Amino acid sequence: MVIVTKTTIERQKLDTMVQDFRNLGLEVDIIEGTGSIVLGLIGDTHQLDADRLLLDPDIERIMRVQEPFKKASRKFHPEATVIDVNGVSIGDGKSFVVMAGPCSVETEEQILTVAKSVKSNGASILRGGAYKPRTSPYSFQGLELEGLELLKKARKETGLPIVTEIMCPSLVEVFNENVDIIQVGARNMQNFDLLKELGKIEKPILLKRGLSATIEEWLMSAEYIMAGGNHNVILCERGIRTFETYTRNTLDLSAIPAVKKLSHLPVVVDPSHSAGMSWMVEPLSLAAMAVGADGIIVEVHNDPKNALCDGAQSLDLDQYGALMDKLGNMSVHFGKKCYKI
Amino acid sequence: MVIVTKTTIERQKLDTMVQDFRNLGLEVDIIEGTGSIVLGLIGDTHQLDADRLLLDPDIERIMRVQEPFKKASRKFHPEATVIDVNGVSIGDGKSFVVMAGPCSVETEEQILTVAKSVKSNGASILRGGAYKPRTSPYSFQGLELEGLELLKKARKETGLPIVTEIMCPSLVEVFNENVDIIQVGARNMQNFDLLKELGKIEKPILLKRGLSATIEEWLMSAEYIMAGGNHNVILCERGIRTFETYTRNTLDLSAIPAVKKLSHLPVVVDPSHSAGMSWMVEPLSLAAMAVGADGIIVEVHNDPKNALCDGAQSLDLDQYGALMDKLGNMSVHFGKKCYKI
Amino acid sequence: MVIVTKTTIERQKLDTMVQDFRNLGLEVDIIEGTGSIVLGLIGDTHQLDADRLLLDPDIERIMRVQEPFKKASRKFHPEATVIDVNGVSIGDGKSFVVMAGPCSVETEEQILTVAKSVKSNGASILRGGAYKPRTSPYSFQGLELEGLELLKKARKETGLPIVTEIMCPSLVEVFNENVDIIQVGARNMQNFDLLKELGKIEKPILLKRGLSATIEEWLMSAEYIMAGGNHNVILCERGIRTFETYTRNTLDLSAIPAVKKLSHLPVVVDPSHSAGMSWMVEPLSLAAMAVGADGIIVEVHNDPKNALCDGAQSLDLDQYGALMDKLGNMSVHFGKKCYKI
Amino acid sequence: MVIVTKTTIERQKLDTMVQDFRNLGLEVDIIEGTGSIVLGLIGDTHQLDADRLLLDPDIERIMRVQEPFKKASRKFHPEATVIDVNGVSIGDGKSFVVMAGPCSVETEEQILTVAKSVKSNGASILRGGAYKPRTSPYSFQGLELEGLELLKKARKETGLPIVTEIMCPSLVEVFNENVDIIQVGARNMQNFDLLKELGKIEKPILLKRGLSATIEEWLMSAEYIMAGGNHNVILCERGIRTFETYTRNTLDLSAIPAVKKLSHLPVVVDPSHSAGMSWMVEPLSLAAMAVGADGIIVEVHNDPKNALCDGAQSLDLDQYGALMDKLGNMSVHFGKKCYKI
Repeated sequence: MVIVTKTTIERQKLDTMVQDFRNLGLEVDIIEGTGSIVLGLIGDTHQLDADRLLLDPDIERIMRVQEPFKKASRKFHPEATVIDVNGVSIGDGKSFVVMAGPCSVETEEQILTVAKSVKSNGASILRGGAYKPRTSPYSFQGLELEGLELLKKARKETGLPIVTEIMCPSLVEVFNENVDIIQVGARNMQNFDLLKELGKIEKPILLKRGLSATIEEWLMSAEYIMAGGNHNVILCERGIRTFETYTRNTLDLSAIPAVKKLSHLPVVVDPSHSAGMSWMVEPLSLAAMAVGADGIIVEVHNDPKNALCDGAQSLDLDQYGALMDKLGNMSVHFGKKCYKI
Repeated sequence: MVIVTKTTIERQKLDTMVQDFRNLGLEVDIIEGTGSIVLGLIGDTHQLDADRLLLDPDIERIMRVQEPFKKASRKFHPEATVIDVNGVSIGDGKSFVVMAGPCSVETEEQILTVAKSVKSNGASILRGGAYKPRTSPYSFQGLELEGLELLKKARKETGLPIVTEIMCPSLVEVFNENVDIIQVGARNMQNFDLLKELGKIEKPILLKRGLSATIEEWLMSAEYIMAGGNHNVILCERGIRTFETYTRNTLDLSAIPAVKKLSHLPVVVDPSHSAGMSWMVEPLSLAAMAVGADGIIVEVHNDPKNALCDGAQSLDLDQYGALMDKLGNMSVHFGKKCYKI
Repeated sequence: MVIVTKTTIERQKLDTMVQDFRNLGLEVDIIEGTGSIVLGLIGDTHQLDADRLLLDPDIERIMRVQEPFKKASRKFHPEATVIDVNGVSIGDGKSFVVMAGPCSVETEEQILTVAKSVKSNGASILRGGAYKPRTSPYSFQGLELEGLELLKKARKETGLPIVTEIMCPSLVEVFNENVDIIQVGARNMQNFDLLKELGKIEKPILLKRGLSATIEEWLMSAEYIMAGGNHNVILCERGIRTFETYTRNTLDLSAIPAVKKLSHLPVVVDPSHSAGMSWMVEPLSLAAMAVGADGIIVEVHNDPKNALCDGAQSLDLDQYGALMDKLGNMSVHFGKKCYKI
Repeated sequence: MVIVTKTTIERQKLDTMVQDFRNLGLEVDIIEGTGSIVLGLIGDTHQLDADRLLLDPDIERIMRVQEPFKKASRKFHPEATVIDVNGVSIGDGKSFVVMAGPCSVETEEQILTVAKSVKSNGASILRGGAYKPRTSPYSFQGLELEGLELLKKARKETGLPIVTEIMCPSLVEVFNENVDIIQVGARNMQNFDLLKELGKIEKPILLKRGLSATIEEWLMSAEYIMAGGNHNVILCERGIRTFETYTRNTLDLSAIPAVKKLSHLPVVVDPSHSAGMSWMVEPLSLAAMAVGADGIIVEVHNDPKNALCDGAQSLDLDQYGALMDKLGNMSVHFGKKCYKI
């Protein structure tokens, strides 16, 4: 950590400050400039709270030299983390994994129809919501436990592992027993009680980026899960909130190379929620592959116009088929395994 | 609801669409323009999902005529809601309520010292965190149940009602029994499972605005609590996330008159978390009173430099006293009861 | 235009309002609902100012049915605009055009070295700044006229058309005579005096999106140029300002399909300024091609570490060569002409 | 400046780097830590480009120790700048200056009516647009030179100094001769050619903050004008662009104490453009006074419903009178001169 103080600081105060740091086991170097004095602190500075230090009117600026996340950092774990979900490999650099399915599980017929169709068109994992976070208390809130049972039926029929969203710490046990990947939605990215519970199991977690989370905060939320002992975290970029209103959110594709540089965790893209419009899913999915994502999670419905939620952004089965044709062809160029190759 | 379709829509399709709406009990008027056809739908259109309707390529635009919240809306509840907390009246238009105390409860001595001091300087309610949402898993997470006990001791000694933050639905019962106002933090504003549980009790809820929540979404979260039966919601503006980095967040004081117009609920301002700097608390508190807020919630610590969290934004006891002098004087001008009058 | 009024509006006032609209030549239909009255206005409603109408306390909401831009709209001009720059075709759907060169023109040697190198590696157009918009008055401001002369030399030696930024209306004549595409930078996207002058010439204009411009505002700025008579506008997405600080700006790749749907104008991507880091240029360029852009404009320098501006985001000649190899290979997959094919 | 390098940097390279800095006249101190090496650079580091240095893969982080603005900085100019405009004192800490008038000058009758009315109700300066920046090329663009003449007539009749917006460097001479304060609008805050021209005169400049400008960028634009020799800059906060759509922009009142701390320049608030709704002007104006602004600039029209621009946010003459009553009363509390006292 580097601390910049005013030159007007009293000599005795400076000495005390330096001694305090040394008492914490830190090595301190002092550089005296004409306009300021710079202290270089060497050692484990995680014990220091920069915000609190800044309270001192003699301290002008503080710069952390190290990132605040450790387990999620590529610096301490250079090789990429590869997560195996019932034989589906995520983050291996050789595959582009497609997770597909409806926003909500609605009926047995619906989820089975969609599951079979997406499987025959190259999806590796089935998505579907049983518990739904809805902005309005008057909207459909999901089939809950019944939805989980229907997802399990679809898994049994197709062999596809299932991913579905959790919203509450008290359901971690049920989810751990029943699903293959547990999704944490954007609104719960900083639901720390939930993250702590998920750190206690070993199930892969799909951690969506919060609507206004910085990349660092997103990785800190991954760190929460990993600090608890669960290292199976898959990141998911799903658009951030900006001033632009044409799209529901602004998909931040630059975050993919950023995360790949900062962290060893796999990262996928959600092209459905980011734009909020089904006709944008295809170009954004192609761009996600081009920019280096490990896969996508995409909404597909057999009858989008009558979907109980998010119909406007869902592909129908044919549109999904067309998307997979394009992704499949493009994956050849990138040498990544994705549908048909 | 108003629906705009293309003029190229097939006549038969339009007839079917109109008939479908009528079958839902809606009255439909049709205006045929040169560039588009406008359908005016009268009746309970909450059953319609605008996003889903937009899937139809013949539909160009949709405008909701009514707000999506009802119980929180001033339209259906013109008189202001006044919430009584053990004799402290919030939202009555005649008082400016000050909630003050440390970010975290740390020790018995600390909370008692602060509580007595803020009481003697005009605070009506004691704040203090027992469960702390921290970005880093390695930061101090609060004293939890022990913190609640210390808050109760401070209440007993000073008579001040207490407000503290809840993060998890499983703690609703404990909080309901022990505290006077339950705070929902910015990060949990859309923790819908938590909101639903809070809707089942009658305890006043202090609902902070999410970092990237629109005013409408904030009111929809209030609606969640109210839809469950708990109408005692106090809104709290605490800054939104923008591109500006000088302040930690951007305090949106325009939101106060906006909320006052849209809703009948009381609204207070948090000048500590928004700016993140103690020296900005005073001007922002004065502005909060001037703009029409019902009060503030402010961080005060007996020893900010050694606070276990958020020291940089905490006032010390003297600074708090000076703030209350200014607020007290200004409240005379506004004819609002606040300290010493 | 659709206008929603309260049902409490006085009958006589409503009649007058309707009559006023009819006097403007508009047809007015009235739908009376239980909670509101809806007026459907048919005809040329561009003469009405929605904001002003909203001043009337009896008017609750207004919805424009048509977009505010006409000449830039695909609705009135369904086929794509293709712009020919000395034989280089931009927006034809069959080519991916690469504009490359240094941030600033610095010396004859520098610009000639870069120009020859990028030409031999597939660039179609040479970029380079002569007049530089710099945040600090103390930074290098460009070689100005001398820079234009050096660009012309480079054009003569390589045959590459040149694109460079204009900042002031008084220079339009000089730029019109000397350069092949005139660039309007993000900070000048709403410099309306400049846009008006550029509307009077026929030279192609590269119009960058403003840092906080919505897609609609961007197209309205194109409309300014086109309304003056110059239809040769090339749009350029270069990142928008958001809360994220890891990247300098957030590249909004969703804007490419959005613009393609709303407008007939060509659109290119600037992967250098958006991220502000040279190592991100390659993945973002590939994503730009995948998402459907008509090309990129990219910063290349023979000696980035000693560049007079923006060195951090400039590719060196080898990195540029490597980028072009990847783009060239990928263009085969997309059936677009780009380097070597 | 503080530079952090990796410990894996080759010793010889480090030596060369350090020597290069010393050759520039800088003093360099080296702190070798376990995870990184820190270089402290003392001297005039404005000659170094941090972005360019970061190109070096061995350099990890850079921290500027000093602000990039000098003439605008309070550090080098502790006492507040007070600007005298024909006897009206702005920034003296004892007055709250009100600039009022219509968005656009429309007719002689209109501007005279408004000018007389606002003068009799405590305005010190008359505002009014002659050249109007409009998003649409089809909207009213202002009366231009004729508008300036009408403003001068209003000045002659009332004695109020006039402030009006400039959009183009070629008009600086005309404005310098005819108006008392030259306004630079938000869209031109980084129109550097315009700023440079304004630096050459001595006329007071009202510099609005750009829609997405950070406080630092805003002060850097002031620095542009001051670097040219014109130190008479008045800053104006007018709302920034955020995700919130209820208000047109988000008024950033925290920016007032921030600017007061960082700079010695006066700062006023525009409560009309920020919210975009006339009913919000009053609470925001009161808040502006409470937060410490030196004044406001507010839109007033004799007939807002028929205003040629921005009617929705204009106060009518009575509303303006009511506002001034409240501001006048409140100013007594703050000990600031404003209307009637």
